[in-house]
Amino acid sequence: MTALPLASLHGSLRDPVLGSISFLNEIMTRFPDAISFAPGAPHLTFVSDLDIAGHVDRFLDHLCTTRGYDRDRARRLLCEYGPSRGLINELVADALRMDYSIDVPPRAVVITVGAQEAMFLVLRALFHSADDLLAIVSPCFAGIAGAARLLDIGVVPVAEGTHGIDVDQLSRACRDARAGGRRVRALYVIPDFSNPAGTRLDLAMRRELLELADREDFLVLEDNAYGFTAAPGTELPTLKALDRASRVIYLATFAKVCVPGARVGFVVADQPVRAADGSVQPLADNLAALKTMVTVNTSPICQAVIGGMLLEHGGSLAALGREKAGLYRRNMKLLLNSLDRHVRPGPARVRWNHPAGGFFVRVFLPAPADITLLERSASEYGVLWTPMSQFHLDGAGDRALRLSCSYLEPWQIETGIGRFAEFLRREVGT
Amino acid sequence: MTALPLASLHGSLRDPVLGSISFLNEIMTRFPDAISFAPGAPHLTFVSDLDIAGHVDRFLDHLCTTRGYDRDRARRLLCEYGPSRGLINELVADALRMDYSIDVPPRAVVITVGAQEAMFLVLRALFHSADDLLAIVSPCFAGIAGAARLLDIGVVPVAEGTHGIDVDQLSRACRDARAGGRRVRALYVIPDFSNPAGTRLDLAMRRELLELADREDFLVLEDNAYGFTAAPGTELPTLKALDRASRVIYLATFAKVCVPGARVGFVVADQPVRAADGSVQPLADNLAALKTMVTVNTSPICQAVIGGMLLEHGGSLAALGREKAGLYRRNMKLLLNSLDRHVRPGPARVRWNHPAGGFFVRVFLPAPADITLLERSASEYGVLWTPMSQFHLDGAGDRALRLSCSYLEPWQIETGIGRFAEFLRREVGT
Repeated sequence: MTALPLASLHGSLRDPVLGSISFLNEIMTRFPDAISFAPGAPHLTFVSDLDIAGHVDRFLDHLCTTRGYDRDRARRLLCEYGPSRGLINELVADALRMDYSIDVPPRAVVITVGAQEAMFLVLRALFHSADDLLAIVSPCFAGIAGAARLLDIGVVPVAEGTHGIDVDQLSRACRDARAGGRRVRALYVIPDFSNPAGTRLDLAMRRELLELADREDFLVLEDNAYGFTAAPGTELPTLKALDRASRVIYLATFAKVCVPGARVGFVVADQPVRAADGSVQPLADNLAALKTMVTVNTSPICQAVIGGMLLEHGGSLAALGREKAGLYRRNMKLLLNSLDRHVRPGPARVRWNHPAGGFFVRVFLPAPADITLLERSASEYGVLWTPMSQFHLDGAGDRALRLSCSYLEPWQIETGIGRFAEFLRREVGT
Repeated sequence: MTALPLASLHGSLRDPVLGSISFLNEIMTRFPDAISFAPGAPHLTFVSDLDIAGHVDRFLDHLCTTRGYDRDRARRLLCEYGPSRGLINELVADALRMDYSIDVPPRAVVITVGAQEAMFLVLRALFHSADDLLAIVSPCFAGIAGAARLLDIGVVPVAEGTHGIDVDQLSRACRDARAGGRRVRALYVIPDFSNPAGTRLDLAMRRELLELADREDFLVLEDNAYGFTAAPGTELPTLKALDRASRVIYLATFAKVCVPGARVGFVVADQPVRAADGSVQPLADNLAALKTMVTVNTSPICQAVIGGMLLEHGGSLAALGREKAGLYRRNMKLLLNSLDRHVRPGPARVRWNHPAGGFFVRVFLPAPADITLLERSASEYGVLWTPMSQFHLDGAGDRALRLSCSYLEPWQIETGIGRFAEFLRREVGT
């Protein structure tokens, strides 16, 4: 057989969004000695000592106590297929009620292979024709843009504006879509310390967004990967906790509060769905049905690891997150402090935001922050970052970059920002 | 918000194929005392004593030896995200070469969340417009039909005929598609002891199929879930081993030879893909890129469990399978023997095939084997089976059913077929 032309494969494979992750891996491999502010990976402290057997045992104890299983039966669950909606749904529903005032039945929860599969299933369920559009706050997490691309879903970028989302633009997009015989079916947003921009919606904006969703009849896909990093006393209610009309589908991952390697996330979808025969079931039932055709079910071994970790923290997601949030806030403070000391916003107007949590800071430059500049930063100054244009859906963001501080040690942040400042002075002319 | 109409969700959610698995679960829950020949689950012996920590340790030893990692670095791999193509690709490529004469580089392998995700990624990569059709040998595994449905891929059923696949019909389907401005892009087939029909392609048919693929320019998706159950000395080469023109994409699962709960499978895709700039990479690279937007990567914890099991069997997939195949062949013999003793093919012409391996036997009835008859079989005779129509894409198969014997004990097979015979005598009139 002659080679398959790439042009004969699915269009997503020619979309830059699919290459963005491998590009970062590749440049980090090429410059192993550079200090990298590129990946949003968890800190090494949290990925170095996983007691798999201990966590699994803790979960098996729980199964025996709560379901009356004997040990053999509980152990067998780890090996078998298991329900596509998951094994730890009760634990998750309890934690959501206790920690975040999100009150849904376990049946409204589906345990997924990370938040990525949750996004994928939600998009597949909600989008049934080319007339349905997905609005995404831009710049955005590549995972949502990529999932939409795989499913040939039309995307409408909505700018962040000054409050985390430009609601006027979103409202206009809804009206424009309707005028063209289409509709904005859903909006994807990370309300807390977004990836990549580190922005946060305040309480007023959260309420305004939910009102707009009601008025314009769209669903909100809330991704809460970074909310746990908020300082105690500064937490804001999630959109889902404020949601009175079942407008919000809540997406979450255990990668940041437990470990990425378990590949466990979940989705809360309590929206009622009415069949032609009048019967009503939660949208989660549909997501679980779709999941049988994507991954069948999430590994019970991995669910047991996560379930055990959750139980060891009194069944509290917030307690799991609290343990880690301190380190991430320390790193964020160090990063902002280093930027303030080393980089003076001069006439050339380098500036950056000051997130109170999360993993990411956005830096605006007076010059294009493109691949050429990144290569120069890596080879001449030993410091890596991510061009913000990689996260934009509309070709914008060419004069901004993302700094991530989640997995670095304090000395790396200090030294790295020293290098970054030197790079800015010489190459960008600040 | 008022309820979402099911009709406003993706069309796959109204397709019976998505309901087929939950239907079987539901009827088994309703008749817990019935002996069930319905699910193709692994035998309890193989899912009762998983030494997770031991298998993981074995794999970590291997990583330290082969990659020169220290123990901490190796342990860290379990917790982190890891490459989307997988961690155990070398082990898998070595096993394929050693066991099945499939000689591909590790880069041609992608480790997936079960064979189901492998199917899903392959379909997404290969099908880029509504003009591309997927031919499926019918009756077929629901997982392939469901994955195609999720991606809105047009399907052409091809009858099994008497040799496992009706190549004339397939050839005609290719010509018809071309005449209509479309094309058959790929064929999905389970050459060894297929699910659901238990059929097997002989060597001549395998060669003929590959020739047809070359002539009509389609790819072959070979699912080898059951090949390991062939009696020693009766193994046939896989299509992939016979494939001289990179026509075959090979799909496999560890669910049957290791444990389903690990959710690990893989795909071999060494097809060269040529980009617009002339560069060539294996199709596996594209599948790995798509995977970043579906599940990011397969849990390294689960890959370590499977990697450890493989290493404990000298790195041989065949050795892993051999250990289990004896039990499955015993069960198949018992099933066929019980059928021969209890059910006499009378004038009403109940008949069945005699697979030499696999999990499944197909029984033809002189009457419709529908849900009503199944309910009666369950409630009055205490025996469950699967209507074959559930596996057909074209409304056929209404007078056939599937018996699965994989997870039953000998006494259950004997007693269950006794009940089945009684049911046939009284309800079907044999």
